Amino acid sequence: MPTVRYLEDLSVGERLTTRSMEVTEADAIGFADVYDPQPMHNDRKAAARGPFGGLIASGWHTTAMVMRLIVDASPLGGAPVLGLGVDHIRWPNPLRPGDTIHAEIEVMSITPSLSKPDFGVVHIKVTAVNQKNEPVLIMNPNLWVPRRPARP
Amino acid sequence: MPTVRYLEDLSVGERLTTRSMEVTEADAIGFADVYDPQPMHNDRKAAARGPFGGLIASGWHTTAMVMRLIVDASPLGGAPVLGLGVDHIRWPNPLRPGDTIHAEIEVMSITPSLSKPDFGVVHIKVTAVNQKNEPVLIMNPNLWVPRRPARP
Repeated sequence: MPTVRYLEDLSVGERLTTRSMEVTEADAIGFADVYDPQPMHNDRKAAARGPFGGLIASGWHTTAMVMRLIVDASPLGGAPVLGLGVDHIRWPNPLRPGDTIHAEIEVMSITPSLSKPDFGVVHIKVTAVNQKNEPVLIMNPNLWVPRRPARP
Repeated sequence: MPTVRYLEDLSVGERLTTRSMEVTEADAIGFADVYDPQPMHNDRKAAARGPFGGLIASGWHTTAMVMRLIVDASPLGGAPVLGLGVDHIRWPNPLRPGDTIHAEIEVMSITPSLSKPDFGVVHIKVTAVNQKNEPVLIMNPNLWVPRRPARP
């Protein structure tokens, strides 16, 4: 278990780049079959005739894959990545099977909680791009981050 | 294929209630194993010792399940439910295995596109609640909705 990165260890403006992940057609269709069963996501022939000219991943699949990339990057060390919410999500370009994505995380603000003095809220910006560096997901989550315990 | 509900067929303030869905432990762990592998989501013993006193579904799993409920409710008839983005997501209460959720959709605003006259943006509020009527997900997506074609 890696060392915890507490609220006090983070800095506004710090950035972290995740590993990359390929989106396979089987994964895109499999996710859509369960959570977003619409032709542009899970019907290859219908998608080819549609406005995107082929299958595109569900936006929620994109978001879930980026969550996996963030978790694997351990931005808080051994502390969990726990989101209070997200202020803004955009999918500026479609994500297509065969694309490879990675994400960059930037710390935008750090706010100690007034009501729970052991925690704080860290507002981050997450930008995921494909292999052409086109953004496929931009979102601004708020993470719930523990503060460093006071010394006894 | 049901009839399309075009932008002109929608009304601000209209509401739609989706069907219900149970969240099984196997589904919660299975989603987390792939997309959000953290102890509170996929390790029953560790989760029992943690701050939630048991497993909770990944927030992205909750969001994906609610997307499925929305798709199955066909709010736009035969037109696809295509999100441009989401302005706000909150998970006010944890969703636990064994819980049953459903969602309510409310049309908040309807805005014809100036740049693409065949489409418009419909801002909706989605509130998903568990079997105790506690909110587990509140989000405000923007949908891309076709306008009724002009008669020839």
